Amino acid sequence: MAPKALDYESMNENVKKVQYAVRGELYLRASELQKEGKKIIFTNVGNPHALGQRPLTFPRQVVALCQAPFLLDDPNVGIVFPADAIARAKHYLSLTSGGLGAYSDSRGIPGVRKEVAEFIERRDGYPSDPELIFLTDGASKGVMQTLNCVIRGEGDGVVLLFHTTWKRQQIGVLIINDLQQSVAQARSKGITVRAMVIINPGNPTGQCLSEANLREILRFCYQENLVLLGDEVYQQNIYQDERPFVSSKKVLMDMGLPFSKEVQLVSFHTVSKGYWGECGQRGGYFEMTNIPPKTVDEIYKIASIALSPNVPAQIFMGLMVNPLKPGDISYEQFVRESKGILESLRRRARMMTDGFNSCRNVVCNFTEGAMYSFPQIRLPPKAIEAAKRAGKVPDVFYCLRLLEATGISTVPGSGFGQKEGIFHLRTTILPAEEDMPAIMESFKKFNDEFMEQYEDYRGYSRM
Amino acid sequence: MAPKALDYESMNENVKKVQYAVRGELYLRASELQKEGKKIIFTNVGNPHALGQRPLTFPRQVVALCQAPFLLDDPNVGIVFPADAIARAKHYLSLTSGGLGAYSDSRGIPGVRKEVAEFIERRDGYPSDPELIFLTDGASKGVMQTLNCVIRGEGDGVVLLFHTTWKRQQIGVLIINDLQQSVAQARSKGITVRAMVIINPGNPTGQCLSEANLREILRFCYQENLVLLGDEVYQQNIYQDERPFVSSKKVLMDMGLPFSKEVQLVSFHTVSKGYWGECGQRGGYFEMTNIPPKTVDEIYKIASIALSPNVPAQIFMGLMVNPLKPGDISYEQFVRESKGILESLRRRARMMTDGFNSCRNVVCNFTEGAMYSFPQIRLPPKAIEAAKRAGKVPDVFYCLRLLEATGISTVPGSGFGQKEGIFHLRTTILPAEEDMPAIMESFKKFNDEFMEQYEDYRGYSRM
Repeated sequence: MAPKALDYESMNENVKKVQYAVRGELYLRASELQKEGKKIIFTNVGNPHALGQRPLTFPRQVVALCQAPFLLDDPNVGIVFPADAIARAKHYLSLTSGGLGAYSDSRGIPGVRKEVAEFIERRDGYPSDPELIFLTDGASKGVMQTLNCVIRGEGDGVVLLFHTTWKRQQIGVLIINDLQQSVAQARSKGITVRAMVIINPGNPTGQCLSEANLREILRFCYQENLVLLGDEVYQQNIYQDERPFVSSKKVLMDMGLPFSKEVQLVSFHTVSKGYWGECGQRGGYFEMTNIPPKTVDEIYKIASIALSPNVPAQIFMGLMVNPLKPGDISYEQFVRESKGILESLRRRARMMTDGFNSCRNVVCNFTEGAMYSFPQIRLPPKAIEAAKRAGKVPDVFYCLRLLEATGISTVPGSGFGQKEGIFHLRTTILPAEEDMPAIMESFKKFNDEFMEQYEDYRGYSRM
Repeated sequence: MAPKALDYESMNENVKKVQYAVRGELYLRASELQKEGKKIIFTNVGNPHALGQRPLTFPRQVVALCQAPFLLDDPNVGIVFPADAIARAKHYLSLTSGGLGAYSDSRGIPGVRKEVAEFIERRDGYPSDPELIFLTDGASKGVMQTLNCVIRGEGDGVVLLFHTTWKRQQIGVLIINDLQQSVAQARSKGITVRAMVIINPGNPTGQCLSEANLREILRFCYQENLVLLGDEVYQQNIYQDERPFVSSKKVLMDMGLPFSKEVQLVSFHTVSKGYWGECGQRGGYFEMTNIPPKTVDEIYKIASIALSPNVPAQIFMGLMVNPLKPGDISYEQFVRESKGILESLRRRARMMTDGFNSCRNVVCNFTEGAMYSFPQIRLPPKAIEAAKRAGKVPDVFYCLRLLEATGISTVPGSGFGQKEGIFHLRTTILPAEEDMPAIMESFKKFNDEFMEQYEDYRGYSRM
């Protein structure tokens, strides 16, 4: 009999070709080991609550009340919920048409999109139009919707910029060299480069872009006629004071004409990161700048087919962009909780960087922002040979050995397309602060023994 | 300057080509009118809570508690939440790894998938494997994931079966004729037909398939080597006793070899329909039958890129498939609420059918199941001419006039690909029961005046 449509041989080849390192071989092996009873530290995905980060109380109270609107008429509700949470729940329910159980407009609840626009205006000092803001089930859905419009077929491509181990003083120059090289390389393969993606603060590298960097990038997009997709989901996650978060939109507007009217920009945000870390709720938004109305209509049409982003997460988004103010009953608790999380992340970023840098053949930049540490692992030639014999990419080989020895589940740098002969791994800085010393000790023990095993002469992998 | 990537002229043509009638011209016009202050009755989408259906209390209590887990330690929680809701919240939180704020496995929480499998086993009397069940953000996401694997490119197609105005006694014969015709027609255009989609109970037609119908369909899929996609989201929505819901999976298993081992089937379910109606939560699942493990792995890989379906809706799904039992504190309230909703829907289905059948040139089958009424509108030739002059498809013309006159927002049958010269509209049966008489009266007044205007001699559109 002929193969059936969902037999492996017969299914869509493009599906098979997709690679996704974050839940690739390493993740699958980690899941197996966990099933076998081994304790696994999942640092492969930025999933803070899975590693013990507790949710902020106030937004959870509000969404709980929105889920249980009958409580709003219960005379006893004040015994377990504060008055400001009750007021906010009433506010958000009044913005829905039918509560959390009704589909919203496919772009998201108009009243919440208005709150997002006001947030962006306060942040950037430039006007923002709710009609150009779409709420989504997490930022990744928005990225997919946008790429779906940008990529017309096999010949089209996107340049993804990982801003990483560039030396600080040269960063302006190096970025542009790198970009020109990447675009030229893609074009020489016959690819029409249509867009650039930046993640700022950076995943996987944990680095923050300066305003000067962003200007260079936007100028490059203008010259090369590229849409810029600005993944800015880590904008709350900043662990140094030299380079605070600046949005691509603000820099673009600051640049003035012709850039501010010409460069097409789509910016993404989420409730999954920052001190919120509400990954499981799946809430996000994107804002479009310089995108013509007819294109916006097409994006709306496609969003309509998926009916509506989930409504509870839209409320979380409203709460994130329209936070409590001094004087509100729950304000102090909210500030205490969010500060506590951010300060702990900053300390963990430091512990991890220092821990990696104390290891043999490992060098690591400080995690300036986002949730990741991205140490470079200088693998000895014998380790690279051993990997080849095992049929593995060298960094996959290293990460698998790390996983088996310690339970630490990371993502090999090759999953992000690093340069040939240079090896990294990505780990989140999210393990609980009190567990961090033991984790870094266990990493160091594994790494130094690994290096000992393969490094019987003074040779490193090319740097 | 060259067009930019997100200029309309330059964007992905396939996006522009997509048509989606449910939120098409009619919906956009309705939204405009609403903005202008006109009262609109949105019966274009099956969105029960938007039309006043109230959520079931118990599942909302459980999910509210899961959102506010700190309440579980509050000695006062019992004042506003019943003990069984508290116990269930603890149960579901124990199945997550980090509560509602953590990404789950990309296939959904293992413990909830197990509850889904147990539900399917109880329903069908055949084993169900949690590893072949994926939770999704609503059923539509699951359909997209599946089609993504089935459709390899432009040459591939899917046959969508609308079981509608066939006369009851001939239905077995008619279905197969129709199917063979549709498949032959598609093939004659060079399309490789790879899958069939059925919606049972039926959208837009409101009709239920008998076991005999389903056997014919499955046999046809076997013969023609088609995957069957069974959209069974309306399985709770049954308004007659002759044809209760029977799942495609049960019928397939009943058929025995070779069918039960050969026909590839993917079945979909949701928390959005039935007496739940929790559309805004975006919860669903699909179960795969006779899909090889390597394909399941590929579907898992793609699901991983979207990280995780939203977690609150996974809890709703758990609650739906694992409902309260007699003796539970909240059981009686739960039964009262769900019965109340279903019985009211049954009365509304009757009121709507009778209302349409009392109108000039309108004939309508009884809504046996699902949430839709699908009256045929026999448009006089002069109305068809008037539509052509206005540059509209005749049923779009009719529905726009209906909208302007009454505020009733429907979907023209042409959006579902009806036969040439036959015109329908789709409306939901969801307006509040007390509003129904006025709505049907307003429809009748519009329709009969419309027919009066265009029908000055005894001629109908072809039937």
